[in-house]
Amino acid sequence: MDVKISVGKRVRELRNKLGISQEELADWANLDRTYITSVECGKRNISIVNIEKLTTALKVSLKEFFDFS
Amino acid sequence: MDVKISVGKRVRELRNKLGISQEELADWANLDRTYITSVECGKRNISIVNIEKLTTALKVSLKEFFDFS
Repeated sequence: MDVKISVGKRVRELRNKLGISQEELADWANLDRTYITSVECGKRNISIVNIEKLTTALKVSLKEFFDFS
Repeated sequence: MDVKISVGKRVRELRNKLGISQEELADWANLDRTYITSVECGKRNISIVNIEKLTTALKVSLKEFFDFS
């Protein structure tokens, strides 16, 4: 599977686990809500700095985040 | 530590483990040698697509790659 799709699914999975909205995740990660939407849809070639912002907001380590791989 | 620095150190560590040069890694990952150098120096906000190219060339999963985190 395209890694952008895998990352997007993982963000959505972890966000749903926390029971928070895209707006809340965007707020916690200091990113735009529309950006979160496009990441979750697998449309973004996300950078490591933004991945780290998301994992911090999602309360997982990078290793835990990539536990799908 | 800045995640760009951590990623750079990890790339260098895994490359040394394989006993290959930056030129060889660049060739295997289909990236430029100067790009590998700047990634290893922690100067690049590397994208997930390029991280995957590197992990494939380094023969590790994304989870294994981020085992430092």
